[in-house]
Amino acid sequence: MEGESEIEKGKYAADISSIKEAHDRIKPFILKTPVMSSTSLNALSGRHLYFKCECFQKGGAFKFRGACNAVFSLDDEDASKGVVTHSSGNHAAALALAAKLRGIAAYIVIPKNAPTCKVENVKRYGGQVVWSEASVQSREEIANKVWQETGAIFVHPYNDGRILSGQGTISLELLEQVPQIDTLVVPISGGGLISGIALAAKSINPAIRIFAAEPKGADDAAQSKVAGRIITMAKTNTIADGLRAFLGDFTWPVVRDLVEEVITVEDSEIIKAMKLCFEILKVVVEPSGAIGLAAVLSDTFQKNLAWKDCKHIGIVVSGGNVDLGILWNSLNK
Amino acid sequence: MEGESEIEKGKYAADISSIKEAHDRIKPFILKTPVMSSTSLNALSGRHLYFKCECFQKGGAFKFRGACNAVFSLDDEDASKGVVTHSSGNHAAALALAAKLRGIAAYIVIPKNAPTCKVENVKRYGGQVVWSEASVQSREEIANKVWQETGAIFVHPYNDGRILSGQGTISLELLEQVPQIDTLVVPISGGGLISGIALAAKSINPAIRIFAAEPKGADDAAQSKVAGRIITMAKTNTIADGLRAFLGDFTWPVVRDLVEEVITVEDSEIIKAMKLCFEILKVVVEPSGAIGLAAVLSDTFQKNLAWKDCKHIGIVVSGGNVDLGILWNSLNK
Repeated sequence: MEGESEIEKGKYAADISSIKEAHDRIKPFILKTPVMSSTSLNALSGRHLYFKCECFQKGGAFKFRGACNAVFSLDDEDASKGVVTHSSGNHAAALALAAKLRGIAAYIVIPKNAPTCKVENVKRYGGQVVWSEASVQSREEIANKVWQETGAIFVHPYNDGRILSGQGTISLELLEQVPQIDTLVVPISGGGLISGIALAAKSINPAIRIFAAEPKGADDAAQSKVAGRIITMAKTNTIADGLRAFLGDFTWPVVRDLVEEVITVEDSEIIKAMKLCFEILKVVVEPSGAIGLAAVLSDTFQKNLAWKDCKHIGIVVSGGNVDLGILWNSLNK
Repeated sequence: MEGESEIEKGKYAADISSIKEAHDRIKPFILKTPVMSSTSLNALSGRHLYFKCECFQKGGAFKFRGACNAVFSLDDEDASKGVVTHSSGNHAAALALAAKLRGIAAYIVIPKNAPTCKVENVKRYGGQVVWSEASVQSREEIANKVWQETGAIFVHPYNDGRILSGQGTISLELLEQVPQIDTLVVPISGGGLISGIALAAKSINPAIRIFAAEPKGADDAAQSKVAGRIITMAKTNTIADGLRAFLGDFTWPVVRDLVEEVITVEDSEIIKAMKLCFEILKVVVEPSGAIGLAAVLSDTFQKNLAWKDCKHIGIVVSGGNVDLGILWNSLNK
């Protein structure tokens, strides 16, 4: 294949082949999520918007794709020991569900400040909850302890080729569902979602433009793009509980090379976008899931002349796991 | 066609031919709404549930199908005078939108107690709002006045063959999307939705079973079925603002003959079902839209041995136009 963005095989932690293999592997388990549109939101944004609704995915978020790929990639001996991870929520539920489908144990390290609905999802799918403090350090220590005790295979929420390949299956579906898409807007946190999506999409259509959407209160990816290296932050502050992680060494090279720009938005813009999803699309999205729409509606995006020809925009609605109380309180701030 | 429920042509205000004609007429304008499923809700109900999501329909409710059929059935001379109706909301927005698509005026008589979001929908679609008191009498008087002044064609929210035919197109789609459906559960108010759906579904599959779902606080249809004639109520009391109307002479014969039973549920059951739709399906539904799920989960349905073989149940999620504040307040009652 020729094109401005031809991707060398082996350059990144996943490629179009590993993503297609992942698709074959997980197809029997995942939902091919619908794409939704709204003339009202098209009018509001001045573009054609196509919402890829991963909030309807099993487990309520895209995370099930990667987790499923990781779990079903294991050989029987490894699988028999179970899997372990630490996660603020959606990856946790996803891994528990994937493990349940394979009939193996899932040990899930969850920080005490995770939203109730996400913890309940883990329990619903039979995952064994192990509590940690909120800090990344505490999560990693506890996960390590579980590994020592059980031999369970660690499945990182994003910094793992199997995860990237699983998340990349979104592009395979979306670009088949809406071939005219010229632009993708994807939430960014650890970078697993956008890396998989970018690797697949750029391989299918090298001219496609990939934008990341990130909260201003956790703008480590935006800072990293400017600095040319991974930047982490001592503290994050955003309503988007799914977007507080930092890039890893498997995701950063993809974000560095294939993502055109990281668009940062205020929490107030995220909340406005959640409300639009609720009132106009009739779809329940969590804050992280609404950030793509927030980015497209932002002045940063709307006023940039270089992006005027982004006409058919695929927006990845990453998840729908939101506590009703949190939704209501944030909408009334 | 043979079958236990063979339907004589001309017996009712619509039939499979008029419904197929309606489908051809409105197909360019309506959305073929997706059908959603959830293993969690299947487990909870002990059945296979298929949610026909008319909350994603244009205007946020099934009403657009009938309104569209009525508006595009008019000859040019009639159409030029515009259309008028009285409605508590979804039919109002639907008629406004259909009229806008045809480029004609829509005069919408709305009771002062209608939910804000529904009034806003009417305005968004360019409908001209004319206020009335809450009573049916006041609505009809004001609509009549508009008709006298403008000559606009009156389009009743449900007691009209064109409306029945439009709503019946849901069955054409749903039974093609999920052919194994053996049972349909449909909200009942004035009966336009369930009549159209029953006429089409029984014609396609005479053995299909049709249940109505109705709030206990507005159980006129249940009372009518028992009495064998149309019963109206002096006062209704339910959160389901879309389900407060009474059967008409075009809908009653269909409900009398083709609906197996009217299942009544408490408002608390409706609210529980709304919450399940929100938390598990990730779909925003209004109270009227959630009542089908409430009926299937009710003791009345679950404990009736005669209905044990209702295994593949299509649930019509009629609409998603709910004020966030109303949703939140009701969920916290």
